[in-house]
Amino acid sequence: MEETKNILVIGAGRSSSSLIKYLLDHAEEENWEITVADVSLEAVRQKTQDHPHSRPIVFDIHNEQQRAEEISYADIVISMLPAHMHMDVANDCLKYKKHLATASYVSKGMAALDLAAKEAGIILLNETGLDPGIDHASAMKIIDDIHESGGELTSFKSFCGGLVSPECNDNPWGYKFTWNPRNVILAGHGTAQYIDKGQYKYIPYNRLFTQSEIIEVEGHGKFDAYANRDSLSYRPIYKIEHIPTMVRGTLRMPGYCKAWHVFVKLGLTDDSYKIEASDTLTYPELLDAFLPDGDGTAKEKLVRFMGAEMDGDSLAKIEWLGLFEDTKIGVANASPAEILQHLLEDKWKLQEHDKDMIVMQHQFKYRNAAREARTILSSLVVIGEDPVYTAMAKTVGLPLAIMTRMILQGKIMARGVTIPTTKEIYVPLLEELEKFGVKFQEKEF
Amino acid sequence: MEETKNILVIGAGRSSSSLIKYLLDHAEEENWEITVADVSLEAVRQKTQDHPHSRPIVFDIHNEQQRAEEISYADIVISMLPAHMHMDVANDCLKYKKHLATASYVSKGMAALDLAAKEAGIILLNETGLDPGIDHASAMKIIDDIHESGGELTSFKSFCGGLVSPECNDNPWGYKFTWNPRNVILAGHGTAQYIDKGQYKYIPYNRLFTQSEIIEVEGHGKFDAYANRDSLSYRPIYKIEHIPTMVRGTLRMPGYCKAWHVFVKLGLTDDSYKIEASDTLTYPELLDAFLPDGDGTAKEKLVRFMGAEMDGDSLAKIEWLGLFEDTKIGVANASPAEILQHLLEDKWKLQEHDKDMIVMQHQFKYRNAAREARTILSSLVVIGEDPVYTAMAKTVGLPLAIMTRMILQGKIMARGVTIPTTKEIYVPLLEELEKFGVKFQEKEF
Repeated sequence: MEETKNILVIGAGRSSSSLIKYLLDHAEEENWEITVADVSLEAVRQKTQDHPHSRPIVFDIHNEQQRAEEISYADIVISMLPAHMHMDVANDCLKYKKHLATASYVSKGMAALDLAAKEAGIILLNETGLDPGIDHASAMKIIDDIHESGGELTSFKSFCGGLVSPECNDNPWGYKFTWNPRNVILAGHGTAQYIDKGQYKYIPYNRLFTQSEIIEVEGHGKFDAYANRDSLSYRPIYKIEHIPTMVRGTLRMPGYCKAWHVFVKLGLTDDSYKIEASDTLTYPELLDAFLPDGDGTAKEKLVRFMGAEMDGDSLAKIEWLGLFEDTKIGVANASPAEILQHLLEDKWKLQEHDKDMIVMQHQFKYRNAAREARTILSSLVVIGEDPVYTAMAKTVGLPLAIMTRMILQGKIMARGVTIPTTKEIYVPLLEELEKFGVKFQEKEF
Repeated sequence: MEETKNILVIGAGRSSSSLIKYLLDHAEEENWEITVADVSLEAVRQKTQDHPHSRPIVFDIHNEQQRAEEISYADIVISMLPAHMHMDVANDCLKYKKHLATASYVSKGMAALDLAAKEAGIILLNETGLDPGIDHASAMKIIDDIHESGGELTSFKSFCGGLVSPECNDNPWGYKFTWNPRNVILAGHGTAQYIDKGQYKYIPYNRLFTQSEIIEVEGHGKFDAYANRDSLSYRPIYKIEHIPTMVRGTLRMPGYCKAWHVFVKLGLTDDSYKIEASDTLTYPELLDAFLPDGDGTAKEKLVRFMGAEMDGDSLAKIEWLGLFEDTKIGVANASPAEILQHLLEDKWKLQEHDKDMIVMQHQFKYRNAAREARTILSSLVVIGEDPVYTAMAKTVGLPLAIMTRMILQGKIMARGVTIPTTKEIYVPLLEELEKFGVKFQEKEF
């Protein structure tokens, strides 16, 4: 019988549920012992459920001795920590020659470990969640196919959104928080950069949500799509440096972007300063502080201020949030963004019975070997099972779990800093994901 | 005869001309030796002109030994260095118990030296230029007057601009660079914060230049005024914590703000990223990169994009800059703001014969002891003499020179970190400034 392999999972938060379940479900067959480490033992026990192959531990990432002990004991480490905390783990993995897998973007610090990791014979696998992760794998599969069949890619657009399953979608925004609310409030800050028909395009934040486009996913209807901050840097990653059109974007339900623009124009998504005595203000008083002088109620002034930039649908969304109601903000010394987050966390709370939904769509345009113009739409929709095994937890966690299994089985030869854009990885990864309902629907015309 | 006093002036750039001239003109009578220190000996010699009381030296602020030697040799140090370089000087001043004067805002580091400076018996005088500087002195004189006569200040608005003398104002923007161009391009980034009739007001950068107001300075016509980033923090400094209306702003010629908004809305004042291959683009191609898709020339698309936000006057200003002409940008790997600066430095260059102009206006509203509503307008206009003795150099440098003289004469008792808001300072300072034509015109009604 083969030797027991030890897996160390650091972080047992909400997005680790499907990851840990997959590992435990395969532990017997693969002869694994799975150490699940978190500051909260309760969070760990909720996920491990006394499974005989699990080893729950209380873990402090800043305790160097414990970190070294646990990493040296493991065969592979999966870090579900926030991105900025991976480096201590990565350095220990290098020291003790252990593989590492994360769902985070390759940071500069991580990239710098590439050569040392290759020399140590370990893989530092990153960007292996949903976005980044499944997007890389599924896009590269089609891009490689097109190139190998003698085709030429002329346009690649890719969109992803963490949304709410339609039957649970009971508010006018069509949105609830299924991940970090702060990131949703601050989404898009900076300047969106992409390329369109050979021309660089820049959309500053102040008009980002006025320049959204509408995309359709067959069987799931239409979505607003706004451009992500940086699409240009993906060209070398996908080996399409000279593609004329390349844009990545975020999906929301139709009408969301137009309404969100009201907050952007007002200045309510600003996180750079604190509002004095914010806890003493009501929401209409807050609006007044951002609106030019004028007569009438906050609502009337807002309508005048936005002019043609706000329609009745957007106004209804704003009104539904209670911004015209005479209630106190109730949060002290807060930035505009923090006040908005406080309000939305209440209004956009995912309820016990709610299910989330992940939507991803890649749009490829290419000329085939016969120089004919072709289009491929590749779409993924995943609905969560319940508040624990959400679509988000599934699509972020399963790729890491699957890759961990493949690495421990010796099926992955890549070493050094790696992301799932190579055939060796994406073929088995996408195959295994399909067994869990994470399956792209392709349409070509 | 009194002992010789040694003055160390660090920095002999453009804004030091009037400062050094005042010191040299009083050197004989006051028995001063004036060391002028700069990395460029040529810059020093241009200012000192072999004056018998001058001692020109080549100086490297990062040479600790030289810095210590020169500061320990001086009786007072005037630092004309960029604000972030004052701290090394201040620490040496503390060590060797020498007075220090700067025209910069009190930084946190500087503020922290207050107690130690008092114990050492030295004054660390800051914010003693134009803005901050003359604004503090002239405003406090009137605020103190109102309070001492039993009045109550209800509104204080203060505006300042570094402009071009009307007879040299030969371009449609009514603007040329009389100080750091980069600061002009980036002016207003962030959120303007002020208070109006007891209500906090916030104007985000994306609409700052659409919400300018018009002020009039008698005999000098009208000006656009846009709100500065932070007006709220001035309330404690002026001892008017509970004033219902307080705003500080920047002056430009009428129409400037509406036209500048075109750049803000496009995104051309953004300094946070680089435009790829910027040197290969023409100006219309640059505009295209920021404009939504559409038919027609860059000019036609811009007109459509801006809609009612751009009038014919603004369009003429944009056109005059050559943005619709088919010429290359000619600056590589530049941010949008850097590209705009490159263009404007060419178009808005102060010519040899041009004179600059400083305009400042304070607007006070108060109730006098008899509870009558009164208004005071206090306005300053200074025209430069020539390209060396500019209005900017005069108004920034003379306050420092005058205060240096008063400190060496033993007339200033304040010690520790000080700004010119007290009577001991502002009364003699404003009196002496008047001799140089820096004189506020007051009007009360």
